[in-house]
Amino acid sequence: MEKRILGLDPGLAILGFGVINCKKNEAKIQDTTVQMVDFGVISTPANAEMGQRLCTLFDDLHTLMEELQPDLVAIEKLFFYRMSSTILVAQARGVIMLALAQRRLPYVEFTPAQIKLALTGYGNAEKYEVQEAVARELNLEDIPKPDDASDALAVALTAWFQV
Amino acid sequence: MEKRILGLDPGLAILGFGVINCKKNEAKIQDTTVQMVDFGVISTPANAEMGQRLCTLFDDLHTLMEELQPDLVAIEKLFFYRMSSTILVAQARGVIMLALAQRRLPYVEFTPAQIKLALTGYGNAEKYEVQEAVARELNLEDIPKPDDASDALAVALTAWFQV
Repeated sequence: MEKRILGLDPGLAILGFGVINCKKNEAKIQDTTVQMVDFGVISTPANAEMGQRLCTLFDDLHTLMEELQPDLVAIEKLFFYRMSSTILVAQARGVIMLALAQRRLPYVEFTPAQIKLALTGYGNAEKYEVQEAVARELNLEDIPKPDDASDALAVALTAWFQV
Repeated sequence: MEKRILGLDPGLAILGFGVINCKKNEAKIQDTTVQMVDFGVISTPANAEMGQRLCTLFDDLHTLMEELQPDLVAIEKLFFYRMSSTILVAQARGVIMLALAQRRLPYVEFTPAQIKLALTGYGNAEKYEVQEAVARELNLEDIPKPDDASDALAVALTAWFQV
């Protein structure tokens, strides 16, 4: 089985993405390989109008999916910060879910605790421990930057471990 | 000045809409007319997947705007209910804002209190008082049903009074 997984860390100002290729030999449980393909962010300017920012997010995400052709999308579940920022992220998330549905892409969702647990073995791990696990799993010399991209790779890896 | 205003009461399960035509004679302050054009709801099935519901909302709203050709959209600002329903409505609202931006439609937003104040003269008005004001302003014999459509006409009228 070979799969390309696109991980997304949703946000309005910065949407982190991370793409991995996974191969699993069904006959041998231990025979799995995973490889980093790409990571980065889609960002929208804070001084632009909300609708324009959502348009940018929507168009750029479609372009990204067109280029990367993922088989599965893994997306971080909404975490409750302050109400005002939650609404902004939820509006962005609605647009992201729309774009995935338009491409008929299957997706899985994980909470921050599930991602921490999958990558480090415990749900209360610190951010740097998750980032180090991402670099280790993908044989990267440096921790991917910015944090949003690293978080996106973390959710993609969580999907790989669990799906 | 003549304007067609589309009022929207955002929601994931039910999106209420109401359309009014407004004429204002700039020379005479009192010489204004307003007319109801259409009202109704776009609904999405609760048992469908989130992405599919957002797709339906997005496509149906574009079709509606294509048919009705509004000059301005008036949309109710997000009111804070329970966190879980707020996230659902915010996700739907993100898709609505995207559709408006794609059509380069100007929009105005009003809080529930602003709408009540505009229609009844006080911000704590009961729901039925707002609905009766909508029917009175638009010379309708009956209160428009369902409530979501009546709410959408109320926000459209608020825009008309204030813009």
